[in-house]
Amino acid sequence: MYIHQVAAYLPEQIVTNEHFTNLNGLSAEWIIERTGIRERRKASAGENTNTMAIEATRRALAQAPDFPVEEVDLIVGATYTPHDTIYTLAHAVQRDIGINDIPVVSISSACSSLLNAIEIVEGYFALGKARRAIVVVSEHNTAYNNENDTVAGHLWGDGASTLLLTKERLAPTDLRMVEVMTGGAAVAGKADEAVTLKPVERGIVMPHGRDVFTHACQYMARVTRQILERQHLTLDSLTYLIPHQANLRITKNVLQQLGLPPERAVSNIERLGNTGCAGAAIGLGDTWPLLQPGNRVVITVFGGGYSYGAMLLER
Amino acid sequence: MYIHQVAAYLPEQIVTNEHFTNLNGLSAEWIIERTGIRERRKASAGENTNTMAIEATRRALAQAPDFPVEEVDLIVGATYTPHDTIYTLAHAVQRDIGINDIPVVSISSACSSLLNAIEIVEGYFALGKARRAIVVVSEHNTAYNNENDTVAGHLWGDGASTLLLTKERLAPTDLRMVEVMTGGAAVAGKADEAVTLKPVERGIVMPHGRDVFTHACQYMARVTRQILERQHLTLDSLTYLIPHQANLRITKNVLQQLGLPPERAVSNIERLGNTGCAGAAIGLGDTWPLLQPGNRVVITVFGGGYSYGAMLLER
Repeated sequence: MYIHQVAAYLPEQIVTNEHFTNLNGLSAEWIIERTGIRERRKASAGENTNTMAIEATRRALAQAPDFPVEEVDLIVGATYTPHDTIYTLAHAVQRDIGINDIPVVSISSACSSLLNAIEIVEGYFALGKARRAIVVVSEHNTAYNNENDTVAGHLWGDGASTLLLTKERLAPTDLRMVEVMTGGAAVAGKADEAVTLKPVERGIVMPHGRDVFTHACQYMARVTRQILERQHLTLDSLTYLIPHQANLRITKNVLQQLGLPPERAVSNIERLGNTGCAGAAIGLGDTWPLLQPGNRVVITVFGGGYSYGAMLLER
Repeated sequence: MYIHQVAAYLPEQIVTNEHFTNLNGLSAEWIIERTGIRERRKASAGENTNTMAIEATRRALAQAPDFPVEEVDLIVGATYTPHDTIYTLAHAVQRDIGINDIPVVSISSACSSLLNAIEIVEGYFALGKARRAIVVVSEHNTAYNNENDTVAGHLWGDGASTLLLTKERLAPTDLRMVEVMTGGAAVAGKADEAVTLKPVERGIVMPHGRDVFTHACQYMARVTRQILERQHLTLDSLTYLIPHQANLRITKNVLQQLGLPPERAVSNIERLGNTGCAGAAIGLGDTWPLLQPGNRVVITVFGGGYSYGAMLLER
């Protein structure tokens, strides 16, 4: 399968670190030192997970004349910050594009959902039940976040991204999806309580950030090695690594474990914060124009719960 | 693929119609006449979507000596009433069974999610990425429901069910999954507002029940006919129809459209209310001991958003 196009939607409003300094005394430098984050986006009052998903999808389709909307035959949405758990983001995108009677589902494996969504599409393609799919990842973290939370309130940002996936290659710039692998790791560490979003009780909380940090570093480095080994490739053959955009220190730790120089990692956390399952997809969009024929990219993700995954792409 | 085992978990507490009579004056007879519902279950304070999913899964595994837990290689959870959107019900089940590093994902297509989950498993089986899967459907409607809502407050109940799915037949009593088909219908009618659950704003509301009713009847009858036609089968060859358990009048309408007698439909709504995506799976569990070799069952579902599906099973 192939990724034919990718496009992001980011809300206009920018929240700088100074906002948190005013709110609860965290200094901008302290936030940057601990997380790498300088600013993040915040959806406006009329926006939510569904509207951002629609806007990202419109942009992706507008960039893709070879991918007429009439041929879309599968939509997989992903979010852990749902606007509506019944009329989900995948349904909202379906209604917006106006294509009825195709499989539509929304998922959550927290911040790792992008790769679960792509693996689900891989299954539909293998069954012959679809050949042109939309994967849309969208997070409205600020709807659930408590910005007064001095532990994690400053981490989160809003944003969405849409990928157009095809069974056959449509254009020379398409990225071939060589392999995707995902895993749940709910048995590990404090997966059941380290980072949670219980809509009825409260919003996003991260009482065990250290446990998340340790497992994110360990799993993303491990699964990146695994996917390259399975394809008989070395780390040298990798043009870019796009890790889940959770924290710049996690990215640096993963690079160090793998022996990769900093310029090989794609990062948007400085300007977007942690945009959940949308972060790596937004990173792919940023990297898209830089890729040359033969270049290889690994996207690796880690999410609360826990979950992880890796995907190898080749131009 | 095959369904090897199915088991339900229902909370102990029973809420009768008289509870709503006392609360807001709706008579028991009026509720029965309009919905068929006589009572429903309510999770206790310590229970939630995740705990019910765990309990249903323990029961299914306890019934299945041929399906050792060590061989589970995929978990798909489904709910629109999440306890936690990060540590999801699929993660909770993974942690409980203690099998790490297998794909784990939770989904929502509202009340139709059971068949989306099974179709996702079908994809993993086709890819060769799994051969022994757990599908768990669990709804904690009372966590999000406003029981003072005179329009829909009396409809909802709590419950969960787990199906064990295998690529190859394990036992003569296994049900062969002949075909599953799903569709989103978000373009139809008032799909975007007819029934919604917006966690941040409010709970489950159904401002356009008539629109839901009409589309549920239309889609479930249509897709049941479609799946039988695709398999060159007639309605006569059907032993049981298990529709989504939303409302007894919807079931009767679907039976009437299809020309099927009442005894061919499986129903648990009288004693459980609308248990969301768990309802049809609980119905399958009730029907399981009645099935004889050669019997055929169609499960057909419809969910808010909208979504629908049908699955043909054969013993």
